[in-house]
Amino acid sequence: MLSFRKVLILRELKQITVVGLGLLGGSITLTVLRTFAGVKTVGYSHRSVTRRKARQLAVATEIADDIRRSVSDADLVILATPIGTFEKIFGEISDALPSGCIVTDVGSTKVLPHQWAAKKLPERVHYVGSHPIAGSEQRGVEFARDDLFERTICILTTTKKTNRQAVQTLKGFWSRLGCNVKLIRPAKHDRILANVSHLPHITAVGLMNASDVKELTFAGKGFMDMSRISSSPANIWADVLATNASNIAGSIDRITAELGKLKRAIKSGNKKQIERLLKTARNKRSALIKYKMKKKELIS
Amino acid sequence: MLSFRKVLILRELKQITVVGLGLLGGSITLTVLRTFAGVKTVGYSHRSVTRRKARQLAVATEIADDIRRSVSDADLVILATPIGTFEKIFGEISDALPSGCIVTDVGSTKVLPHQWAAKKLPERVHYVGSHPIAGSEQRGVEFARDDLFERTICILTTTKKTNRQAVQTLKGFWSRLGCNVKLIRPAKHDRILANVSHLPHITAVGLMNASDVKELTFAGKGFMDMSRISSSPANIWADVLATNASNIAGSIDRITAELGKLKRAIKSGNKKQIERLLKTARNKRSALIKYKMKKKELIS
Repeated sequence: MLSFRKVLILRELKQITVVGLGLLGGSITLTVLRTFAGVKTVGYSHRSVTRRKARQLAVATEIADDIRRSVSDADLVILATPIGTFEKIFGEISDALPSGCIVTDVGSTKVLPHQWAAKKLPERVHYVGSHPIAGSEQRGVEFARDDLFERTICILTTTKKTNRQAVQTLKGFWSRLGCNVKLIRPAKHDRILANVSHLPHITAVGLMNASDVKELTFAGKGFMDMSRISSSPANIWADVLATNASNIAGSIDRITAELGKLKRAIKSGNKKQIERLLKTARNKRSALIKYKMKKKELIS
Repeated sequence: MLSFRKVLILRELKQITVVGLGLLGGSITLTVLRTFAGVKTVGYSHRSVTRRKARQLAVATEIADDIRRSVSDADLVILATPIGTFEKIFGEISDALPSGCIVTDVGSTKVLPHQWAAKKLPERVHYVGSHPIAGSEQRGVEFARDDLFERTICILTTTKKTNRQAVQTLKGFWSRLGCNVKLIRPAKHDRILANVSHLPHITAVGLMNASDVKELTFAGKGFMDMSRISSSPANIWADVLATNASNIAGSIDRITAELGKLKRAIKSGNKKQIERLLKTARNKRSALIKYKMKKKELIS
């Protein structure tokens, strides 16, 4: 019979390995170095130039040249690469993962990562999905920061089969990094995030693409804020959008319908109706800000 | 015959009157106090509570209780009230304005203000349109700041009939306040601003209205930035949108078409095409940031 090692509790963690050393991956190892005394961090990137930069910046205790060796002594492995690489990486590291190891990822969609994990990872390791809602439009390990996760949300996705101790340990891990942790099912995650994260992204891209470069010499702070996230890395976001297609199609329909309502009110010169639509948005956002302040995710 | 007083040059200005003491109006008087030594600022608001607050905050040399008296000795009068009030206010102050006085406003659309000025203001004063692209989602004189105009653009709108000296004086005025001044025709202004300012506003409102309040507990920084300007005062923006209807309808069509393109690429799982659309946006925004840095409207 298989012998399963027990799942470690948070204070038993000795080594954390992060695969993928971009803004997020580098920020995880840096924050672990600051907040987990005595825990070894190992970072891996498939690009030698990134490994060199990561060593220069000392973002982790050790930067590994080999992905399988990077995970072979890990208590927790975190994938911080584009979603499209997960299935292949799960397959690559599968044999090298120690028994009882917790495996997670920081991808912005969660249904497919759960499926890939079930297919590719051995039963002796424990997969839980993670989605820290943190980051910026910047890319690369040179933008990694040890405070990126402060006042952010991290969603953990679990199924009925997910090991409870692994969830508890991972919850403690992200909390220590500064996150407010919430637990939901992968399908619910992807549906909600389509609305609150993927749609804003697409909207920023749509706004930017609808704009005339010459006219943008007149753009002010409003436009800059509304287009900021369209500067995010295209490859990472193409993976996110492609892995949540049907939810996102629905989200796009919803904003298109709202834009249609606004257009009709504006074209008909119905100032009362225009004002009503603007007030609805203003009131919803006030409620949101109040909530975020209460949860200390925003400070005044 | 009418006797026209000559139009003052910038250093001859002795009194500047601002009608409407909100975020913008209060910031104008505060900035004039800081940057124009010896120039008297007079502020007027039709609301007594605002006048009281403005006096307490000392945003102007004098806060007037009567709109006609507030402008009777002004060399420059600036309307900083919602656009929908301009026509009426032009009519109210018309007789009280001194000869040679420069009259402007800070409304976000310019075609109608020019028409109203031509209809309501006497020939012995000189109207030029102003649109400082500055402000925030906040409202009220308590948010007025003496650095609101730094690194911003101010568009002046002129027609063939506009007095050239008035334009020069006003250009000098806004430059002194910190603006990078650009001159265009009112119709062109409204067409461009529909795309670079009114559309982002509508998009933020549409995004907010398309969102489910419960789901927003999962919203991160991207959503907060993408919705920020939807917190702006509804009455001010209803006026802006209602006075630029046909341009804005076209702008909404443009973003709707771009969202449709993204939706099709995502639904068909065409990752190459998704990535291409994201890259177009990213590249356009990079070019925009480069331009803004060169013009010192952005600092790194």
